[in-house]
Amino acid sequence: MTERKTTNIILFSGDYDKAMAAYIIANGAAAYDHDVTIFHTFWGLNALRKEEIVPVKKGLMERMFAKIMPRGADKMGLSNMNFLGIGPKMIKNVMKKHNAMPLPDLISMAQEQEVNLVACTMTMDLLGLQKEELLENVEYAGVAAYLADAENGHVNLFI
Amino acid sequence: MTERKTTNIILFSGDYDKAMAAYIIANGAAAYDHDVTIFHTFWGLNALRKEEIVPVKKGLMERMFAKIMPRGADKMGLSNMNFLGIGPKMIKNVMKKHNAMPLPDLISMAQEQEVNLVACTMTMDLLGLQKEELLENVEYAGVAAYLADAENGHVNLFI
Amino acid sequence: MTERKTTNIILFSGDYDKAMAAYIIANGAAAYDHDVTIFHTFWGLNALRKEEIVPVKKGLMERMFAKIMPRGADKMGLSNMNFLGIGPKMIKNVMKKHNAMPLPDLISMAQEQEVNLVACTMTMDLLGLQKEELLENVEYAGVAAYLADAENGHVNLFI
Repeated sequence: MTERKTTNIILFSGDYDKAMAAYIIANGAAAYDHDVTIFHTFWGLNALRKEEIVPVKKGLMERMFAKIMPRGADKMGLSNMNFLGIGPKMIKNVMKKHNAMPLPDLISMAQEQEVNLVACTMTMDLLGLQKEELLENVEYAGVAAYLADAENGHVNLFI
Repeated sequence: MTERKTTNIILFSGDYDKAMAAYIIANGAAAYDHDVTIFHTFWGLNALRKEEIVPVKKGLMERMFAKIMPRGADKMGLSNMNFLGIGPKMIKNVMKKHNAMPLPDLISMAQEQEVNLVACTMTMDLLGLQKEELLENVEYAGVAAYLADAENGHVNLFI
Repeated sequence: MTERKTTNIILFSGDYDKAMAAYIIANGAAAYDHDVTIFHTFWGLNALRKEEIVPVKKGLMERMFAKIMPRGADKMGLSNMNFLGIGPKMIKNVMKKHNAMPLPDLISMAQEQEVNLVACTMTMDLLGLQKEELLENVEYAGVAAYLADAENGHVNLFI
């Protein structure tokens, strides 16, 4: 029996293009039968937000964060050439033309391929995000769980 | 016979300073007899662009991207303290004073040391970049090739 | 006897939130008995700067850099939602509320846990930073030392 290879990606960034890169690598690795985990922390948590507003109790600061941060993958900006929001539209147009999968589809595909989508509970607390606001079938863990996976991992990336 | 160590860097960023870091690590690893690959994707592809304009047929969107994105390593901005383009000049002055290699020279050195410079074909498509526009001796591949290298790699970085 | 696992983090970024991520992972890995190194290069060096002004001789350019760059971990900005400096205050408020450790404390904790804090001498030269300006008990090394650690490392990250 050969051991399965593992890919562990920390998605720290909340940029559409960086999240795309993370999910393309994750889906590729899953197709190659890797055991794949994406650990979403800080701004990367926004990729897991539901698009609709979920009524949860929040303090003032948490409500502000919730408002300012993009609600879900489709709303995220670019790391480069964002141009006040025109950049993402341009990229999405080009992607459609080339039949490239948009980010929300890449995330669904990852879920179908059983990529482990993990949300970092410590930074959820900081940004005031609650489980009800994130996608279904997301796991919740902290840095200890990340390290337990990564220390035996083959492809470890911080994106 | 000992197995050669391998270093696999994904260069996603189009920033001069981050690309410098990538190429300094790559050249160092090559000097240590690692098998080294830099996989250029998204904005990192700009490091491989030729400085001169290459006449190729493009659609409107592709021509726009080609115009906005930096044409080659020497034209890239900084990730920090860019100050509308003054930052890169300051850094290049300081580098000259300290006899540090500018990025285009680091790239040539990498080619001489047989670092594999790979361009991601999927993102070339998205950004409308064609092979004629990139440096000679660049390889073309996708995420599958990256993973095949990285899963046995020793130093895997996403920059 | 089992071999100790190793975690090698390159901290390139000078952002408060990214440095936090680096130090949280480092402290976690040290708690799991990893041999941990954070190699500070480029803007990441700012995390190691002393808060007070240290009188050292500098050229004009070096004095400019010294002035513009944040003097120590507490002065660093956010990679996202920085809002001209309001973002870091918001984050620090939220962190206090949740009893999360601020970055300077995370750095002290790393030193107590014997995480190796390394400053990249090549980029110190470029940015005009001198040893007297950095925290005590920092090591000084270059890319060769980084690679010697990383090529046998288990968790290698570029942040």
